[in-house]
Amino acid sequence: MENIKIIQTAHYIPEKAVFNAELTKLMDTSDEWISSRTGIKKRNISIGENTSDLCTHVAEDLLVKSGWKADELDLIVVATMSPDSYTPATAAIVQGNLQASNAFAFDVSAACSGFAYAFEVASQFLLTKRCCKVMVIGGETLSKVVDWSDRATAVLFGDGAAGVLLATDQTGKSQILASDLQTFGADCDKLSAGVNNALSEFPPKLSERREISAFKMDGRAVYSFATREVPLSLQRACEKAQIDVAQIDVFILHQANERIIKTISKRLRIPLSKFPVNINHYGNTSAASEPILLDELIASQRIKRGDVVALVGFGGGLTVGTQIIKY
Amino acid sequence: MENIKIIQTAHYIPEKAVFNAELTKLMDTSDEWISSRTGIKKRNISIGENTSDLCTHVAEDLLVKSGWKADELDLIVVATMSPDSYTPATAAIVQGNLQASNAFAFDVSAACSGFAYAFEVASQFLLTKRCCKVMVIGGETLSKVVDWSDRATAVLFGDGAAGVLLATDQTGKSQILASDLQTFGADCDKLSAGVNNALSEFPPKLSERREISAFKMDGRAVYSFATREVPLSLQRACEKAQIDVAQIDVFILHQANERIIKTISKRLRIPLSKFPVNINHYGNTSAASEPILLDELIASQRIKRGDVVALVGFGGGLTVGTQIIKY
Repeated sequence: MENIKIIQTAHYIPEKAVFNAELTKLMDTSDEWISSRTGIKKRNISIGENTSDLCTHVAEDLLVKSGWKADELDLIVVATMSPDSYTPATAAIVQGNLQASNAFAFDVSAACSGFAYAFEVASQFLLTKRCCKVMVIGGETLSKVVDWSDRATAVLFGDGAAGVLLATDQTGKSQILASDLQTFGADCDKLSAGVNNALSEFPPKLSERREISAFKMDGRAVYSFATREVPLSLQRACEKAQIDVAQIDVFILHQANERIIKTISKRLRIPLSKFPVNINHYGNTSAASEPILLDELIASQRIKRGDVVALVGFGGGLTVGTQIIKY
Repeated sequence: MENIKIIQTAHYIPEKAVFNAELTKLMDTSDEWISSRTGIKKRNISIGENTSDLCTHVAEDLLVKSGWKADELDLIVVATMSPDSYTPATAAIVQGNLQASNAFAFDVSAACSGFAYAFEVASQFLLTKRCCKVMVIGGETLSKVVDWSDRATAVLFGDGAAGVLLATDQTGKSQILASDLQTFGADCDKLSAGVNNALSEFPPKLSERREISAFKMDGRAVYSFATREVPLSLQRACEKAQIDVAQIDVFILHQANERIIKTISKRLRIPLSKFPVNINHYGNTSAASEPILLDELIASQRIKRGDVVALVGFGGGLTVGTQIIKY
């Protein structure tokens, strides 16, 4: 039981909306095919704004909504699998934009489980009292890693960012009840993006470009992985929290595919009404998907203080990460 | 004061050695120019082995030397700015290679301070008792991010990996005495690599490649930053540890440039003999440089149990990270 409170949430979605119909001009697909198989109707695509820009919008909003000043922050963690660059880290750029002069900043790379992993990292810094005021953002511009001629993957992803401010809660009303993080590196080849191979010879051909690969996914394997491992992770976390899965009020699952969520709901025998979705609007935004949904549900009062909320990320690695919190 | 012990260290350098003379065939430079300005005589370049391969060599060596079994590990953190891919994380690939089935794994991105930042992250997980046996590796194949026609940057970097096993120390003999991490995101443009821009239009030109940028560095600004901020970070860490800088037995500074190290030694008025260097052999290996040197110094018994050691990373972000440990 960890007395950590989500002080504030915020999200930012880039302006440009791309409906399924628009994708039919780029590849052999259809609105019916995409929406029946994934639940996705629309995604937003960032034009000109990189991941740090999306994250900075979120960061500024978090500060405004909370009243925290930038220089009160002592840690900024960005979870992303589509960073602006190898260096500087996206979190460092955000730190600079905010002028958060007392915060150190780094990125965590754990793909679609990135937010869950970064949340866990941030929690440790709070629990040891190494940090007092922490910002965790999941942000992605996956559009720059997509092969826009590949109908198997291009229809799935979207851009966005969202995050939380975390602090310890002296009252003990808000808590992380338990968490469960797992990595399945033996299946690392089931989902890849941005692969950058080592040189094949030296001296290298100077004409060779530093090109990275687009998304490649074994959709069936990832589906099978997610529908098996997410329920197991939730059950382990509930055991640690000494609660029953049925006592969870809201399940915020990574929005990868509506079918995955429906299957997980069935396997857990928990009504689908406890599994809100927004994938129809945003597509799969990887590390941003959990906090976007969290922020929307708090804004609409679907989640209220005191509610027991499960946050579950899963995806590339392969990885899964669950936090059960009392919001 | 944190009772954390470096249980074991290991490093791995890819086979192919590239001496300065070989670079003169690729660009207008000379051995004299490179070695007088940087201290570098040679670097090793990875042919065919990606960052996860270098890290896996280190990881296997760590397990052999320590007698730890792979499934005893509960966390693997890889610090890298040259990951195999955006997903899977390099740490996930290592986890899979080791069959470390009980470890969760993720990458930390903080460039040349990556090892310091990952070490700090790992320490938090130990201090909260969330984890008991942790592996932290810094690994880089920077050769794949270098523009091999740019003599200003290509001569500087090398490939390699190294890491540590960490656990809490019940005896209290080994400790992290203090640490200091700082980020200077306002100067994020002074050193960049692997920049991946957002789309400039949608639909994107399908002919456009997902190309990332090579190293770009404002060498003068980074020199000035490092020689100013590293001494300050060391002084802050010493204040927290309640020791004098002169009480530190060995300073393991990130190996970016021999000149930087000499200037820092002068500014701190600490004899250069306390600042071992190996940049002449390896060039700048970013997140790998601190643990490579640490492992070498432990192997040669230059560092012994009980010694007070400062570990300092600095670079892209810009970032600086110091740990003062009682080894």
